[in-house]
Amino acid sequence: MQTVDFYFDYSSTNSYFAAFMLPESCARHGARVRWLPLHLAALFRGTGFDVMAMTPRKARYLWRDHARYAEFTGLSFRKPSRFPMKTARALRATLAIPMLSDPGASLDDESLLRHEKDIERFAQGVFRAYWECDEDIASPGVIEAVARESGFDGERLVELADSPAAREALASLTQIAIDRGVFGAPTFFVGDEMFWGKDRLDFVERLLKRE
Amino acid sequence: MQTVDFYFDYSSTNSYFAAFMLPESCARHGARVRWLPLHLAALFRGTGFDVMAMTPRKARYLWRDHARYAEFTGLSFRKPSRFPMKTARALRATLAIPMLSDPGASLDDESLLRHEKDIERFAQGVFRAYWECDEDIASPGVIEAVARESGFDGERLVELADSPAAREALASLTQIAIDRGVFGAPTFFVGDEMFWGKDRLDFVERLLKRE
Repeated sequence: MQTVDFYFDYSSTNSYFAAFMLPESCARHGARVRWLPLHLAALFRGTGFDVMAMTPRKARYLWRDHARYAEFTGLSFRKPSRFPMKTARALRATLAIPMLSDPGASLDDESLLRHEKDIERFAQGVFRAYWECDEDIASPGVIEAVARESGFDGERLVELADSPAAREALASLTQIAIDRGVFGAPTFFVGDEMFWGKDRLDFVERLLKRE
Repeated sequence: MQTVDFYFDYSSTNSYFAAFMLPESCARHGARVRWLPLHLAALFRGTGFDVMAMTPRKARYLWRDHARYAEFTGLSFRKPSRFPMKTARALRATLAIPMLSDPGASLDDESLLRHEKDIERFAQGVFRAYWECDEDIASPGVIEAVARESGFDGERLVELADSPAAREALASLTQIAIDRGVFGAPTFFVGDEMFWGKDRLDFVERLLKRE
């Protein structure tokens, strides 16, 4: 069975779109999604990249472009009032999902794949909270509520998100991503082939179809 | 008849792809292309934008991405040995095409549209010279040769490209683009709706189909 590695951060608009489009693409081809939280703030640190550094003309265009994309996909995207957003805790909570049912789970690639559907449900919930409902996903209360609505023990998940294991797992996954050549989100891997941006989902899908 | 305004610069890889893909999209919907040379170096001046400012990881990825896109489109894209490239003269030569057959032509929107097919032939020739044959399109000799192979008086075109009229026209078109909100290339307009990047050609085509 084919697997697409999906690097995402909740702060990335294009990750939001990909989080709903990629599972559909994969379902069409019987492929699985490995949800890989990526701490973009850590990845950008020291590179000189500034997410807010763009001309007002370009910023204005990008929001218009997102709105058109939302119309095209039918997603309820809404420009959030807080931007950028601190996402480390929500990312760690995502990584901690496997520990809810298996306290001894190691937070590695295999475990993330085994819990694909649980992570998808929670991650899509966090994306909706921020990019549709304008909620402050840096807040433990919001993360707890999203977890609860996704059928998990929210209080426990917020505790686990702050555990050393979750902190180490996020740092380690982000470093692995950097070592693989990732420089932004969303990024997809089909085998060794890397694709950056939701605008390459059609290439991802063509590759799934071919193999 | 519908018209798509197409802002391009020969220095832009994605403009190269669009220069071949857009005319096909438009032909499918009976729409016309208004070829609008855009002097990106002038547009970026003072904005702090640096076309070469990116991490080696990202640069490496982008060339790989272009190669995949070339395979997908069937275009003979090849990474040029000179990059970036000075394009002002080639852009002015493009603008001067209408003056070859009509010495009194004013180099405005209407004239560019009337000479759509001549400009397409020459512009595609310049794009191929740079992005397929690795030629130095800043050189008058190369511009002259491309013009000749496209069926024009190359020597005369190079003269016209250096005329005050062509210089003023390029500065003026670039300023109009900036005033319309353009911040990069390729950029397309269908009416007032602006789209940036070859990855939005599908949106352009959907809009042509709808209207």
